[in-house]
Amino acid sequence: MRSSYYAVIFSSLQTTDTEGYSEMAEQMELLARTQPGFLEFEHAREGIAISISYWESMEAISQWKANLDHLEAQRLGRDKWYAWYKIRICKVEREYEFNRE
Amino acid sequence: MRSSYYAVIFSSLQTTDTEGYSEMAEQMELLARTQPGFLEFEHAREGIAISISYWESMEAISQWKANLDHLEAQRLGRDKWYAWYKIRICKVEREYEFNRE
Repeated sequence: MRSSYYAVIFSSLQTTDTEGYSEMAEQMELLARTQPGFLEFEHAREGIAISISYWESMEAISQWKANLDHLEAQRLGRDKWYAWYKIRICKVEREYEFNRE
Repeated sequence: MRSSYYAVIFSSLQTTDTEGYSEMAEQMELLARTQPGFLEFEHAREGIAISISYWESMEAISQWKANLDHLEAQRLGRDKWYAWYKIRICKVEREYEFNRE
């Protein structure tokens, strides 16, 4: 694996007000992918939504957190879309991968 | 937050052979919850499956990895159920939580 990298685990539950949510979620994923230090994105929702973005450094994460369009999305998220969320910033210490050829 | 804890991010894609998978997944979640050092479990599947378990220590993660019933589940996973998986062991460095009201 690369020498060191970071994961942002964003776990959330939505409110019933979903207006504009999917568009914003898609827009933010696309925007994150263009940021310096972005590595990878994984998402699944099944009741709880889990979105994980992977980054080269803590600095890259801080910059993404402070991005102006992202700040506006965060504000709307707290105002409308999320009943609950938890964000965990993690250092990836080890990894294993399995591929069925 | 607690002084330090760890996350195991298990991302996976299934094969078409799903026989016995749901039962085993449920059984492993229940078993994980009884292990020393277990903290929390989050899961969602939407194409990709993401399961995250949270643990008090790396030792707790190693013990869970070496649990005999879990080893058998891992073997079946590689033989039958998974087309791909990636496991990342992470140290949670920071966390934020939002609760509506």
